[in-house]
Amino acid sequence: MFSTTYNEFVQGMSIVLKNDRLLRALTRQNVDVTPVWMMRQAGRYLPEYRATRSRAGDFMSLCQSPELACEVTLQPLRRYAFDAAILFSDILTIPDAMGLGLFFEAGEGPRFRKVIRTRSDVEKLPAISAKSDLSYVIDAVSLIRRELDGSVPLIGFSGSPWTLATYMIEGGGSKDFRQAKAFLYTEPEVMHLLLSKLADAVTDYLNAQIVAGAQAVQIFDTWGGILSTPNYLDFSLSYMKKIVSKLIKEHEGRAVPVILFTKNGGQWLEQIATAEADAVGLDWTTEISSGRERIGSVCALQGNMDPSILYSSPSVIRREVERILANFGKGNGHVFNLGHGITPEVNPDHVSVFVDAVHEISAQYHT
Amino acid sequence: MFSTTYNEFVQGMSIVLKNDRLLRALTRQNVDVTPVWMMRQAGRYLPEYRATRSRAGDFMSLCQSPELACEVTLQPLRRYAFDAAILFSDILTIPDAMGLGLFFEAGEGPRFRKVIRTRSDVEKLPAISAKSDLSYVIDAVSLIRRELDGSVPLIGFSGSPWTLATYMIEGGGSKDFRQAKAFLYTEPEVMHLLLSKLADAVTDYLNAQIVAGAQAVQIFDTWGGILSTPNYLDFSLSYMKKIVSKLIKEHEGRAVPVILFTKNGGQWLEQIATAEADAVGLDWTTEISSGRERIGSVCALQGNMDPSILYSSPSVIRREVERILANFGKGNGHVFNLGHGITPEVNPDHVSVFVDAVHEISAQYHT
Repeated sequence: MFSTTYNEFVQGMSIVLKNDRLLRALTRQNVDVTPVWMMRQAGRYLPEYRATRSRAGDFMSLCQSPELACEVTLQPLRRYAFDAAILFSDILTIPDAMGLGLFFEAGEGPRFRKVIRTRSDVEKLPAISAKSDLSYVIDAVSLIRRELDGSVPLIGFSGSPWTLATYMIEGGGSKDFRQAKAFLYTEPEVMHLLLSKLADAVTDYLNAQIVAGAQAVQIFDTWGGILSTPNYLDFSLSYMKKIVSKLIKEHEGRAVPVILFTKNGGQWLEQIATAEADAVGLDWTTEISSGRERIGSVCALQGNMDPSILYSSPSVIRREVERILANFGKGNGHVFNLGHGITPEVNPDHVSVFVDAVHEISAQYHT
Repeated sequence: MFSTTYNEFVQGMSIVLKNDRLLRALTRQNVDVTPVWMMRQAGRYLPEYRATRSRAGDFMSLCQSPELACEVTLQPLRRYAFDAAILFSDILTIPDAMGLGLFFEAGEGPRFRKVIRTRSDVEKLPAISAKSDLSYVIDAVSLIRRELDGSVPLIGFSGSPWTLATYMIEGGGSKDFRQAKAFLYTEPEVMHLLLSKLADAVTDYLNAQIVAGAQAVQIFDTWGGILSTPNYLDFSLSYMKKIVSKLIKEHEGRAVPVILFTKNGGQWLEQIATAEADAVGLDWTTEISSGRERIGSVCALQGNMDPSILYSSPSVIRREVERILANFGKGNGHVFNLGHGITPEVNPDHVSVFVDAVHEISAQYHT
């Protein structure tokens, strides 16, 4: 199935992109229609994903096989007219590579065998190199890029340092982040040490993805929104800023745009915009018109339909797409997306309605 | 223990309040120190609460016994210098009275035996009268008020219509509110019918609490923050507005202030302020200085320390209280509170530190 050798690939890697709407919109250039992709577009709502996953055995085996990760990354593009692929991987690969032992139990969220609770735990965390310690991800990026063959750009991603830290301290997901917050409040310096180590790892990880072929990258700050304003600025945003400043700006002769997405970050858009990422992701609670007014002159916006709308009917989905496009209005700098990842129970046919509606209805805003 | 008869009580009900800081602050009058109470102050972090609860058997028996509800309401006031009591009850008493069959399984959140999924389910919901259908709550209010004997004011409360509706449709708590949102998006008119019925019930419920002795009331919109802006305005805020407009404004010769609290509502403060409640509750993600700047000229603010700070140390707790007080600054219109309910694992000694810090440190802001 993937028979070309690595050398043939490198030599033949197409830097001509047939559909560059995403990259143009992220850098606020004009486009014919608004580009669209979906967070978690390669995922459980697709029967072919579930089939591949059950073939892989467990979730980590799926992530760790470049061939299978490539396969599930491409699946949604065979069904839908998405303007981008996004690397299929887990958000917690970095802590796993640091030795925490990521695992998944049936029907449960992610868990770690080891947790971080003390200064000594943090000090002992090894520096990692994505190229050697996360080679399965980097190989997947190369492979996906080759298989995409210039059809659409590939987005790489990482969790934000703060978001990774919450899982490492809690040992998994959490409702109230009791341990992570107690850690932050009682040992702020140790928390900063942990976040610095993670920021270094994330920077290296994203740069390795860029070198391997990722044409844009997104930092997911899933849990920044649980912090107070000063703590968000100190313990989450400042590390994302540092990462953005150290990312490879241009590759293959083209800018590599960066997207920052803080769920529940709508109150902090002005501050997020100071990180100088190319684009800021919005969840669905913020009106995109207000987002544009507040920061649209310095960055592009990505978002922001409530994923739950996909549970409704084709006419409701189209109406909501129309509302959001009208809300953003004419002009450049909008990448359509959901305000968070698509959920597993969505009817796959509704995704076609969504994607096609964005393309059809948005044309009028790009004359 | 509670031997006075109802008539003796009514005749003897003290309308003289020894500590009226809360009511003064909620109506932006001057106070000597900033008043403080805590959401869920009568709760599982207190060993005496756990003892009473285990004596009651299950949680609903505790709620349904006016004597036990009164006992747990008073418990935190015996330990801490809180400036208010808040009725101990469950947020879901109204749907239970409408026939949905609220129950709790060990270690689980609330559940309903019946769920609301169709127009016919909504149409069949009976109108209820708090005085007859929720007499156990109203009796608890009277009893607590008598036992408080004018020491501090009693706050009554209800869930917001939207928040109640989410539980009624989901059949309990939810992570993504799939059913409630699908319902909203596919059957908006039926959702409005449900919310209208709930708004009527909440209005009657809060007014009955006021007549029975509640001296301020709070509407908890725990789940308004999961909505998009237009849906928050249409499906949550508009019903809270309607309720506020129909509440008893004055009782026992004194204004009865209303507090609106939408968790994750920081983006919508200006809109929330248009509901003309006396005070708006802030969760910890919004800076109270910014809240004051935005709406402090039209209402008081309540909040907003991250409850997780109580997991840290006395010095960190004091420093955070200091920061928030300084952030609000000099002048009237601040009721100190957590940004959400206290969690069960908190060390009760830390609550003393918190309450005392508010009183001690705030004096300088009220000269």
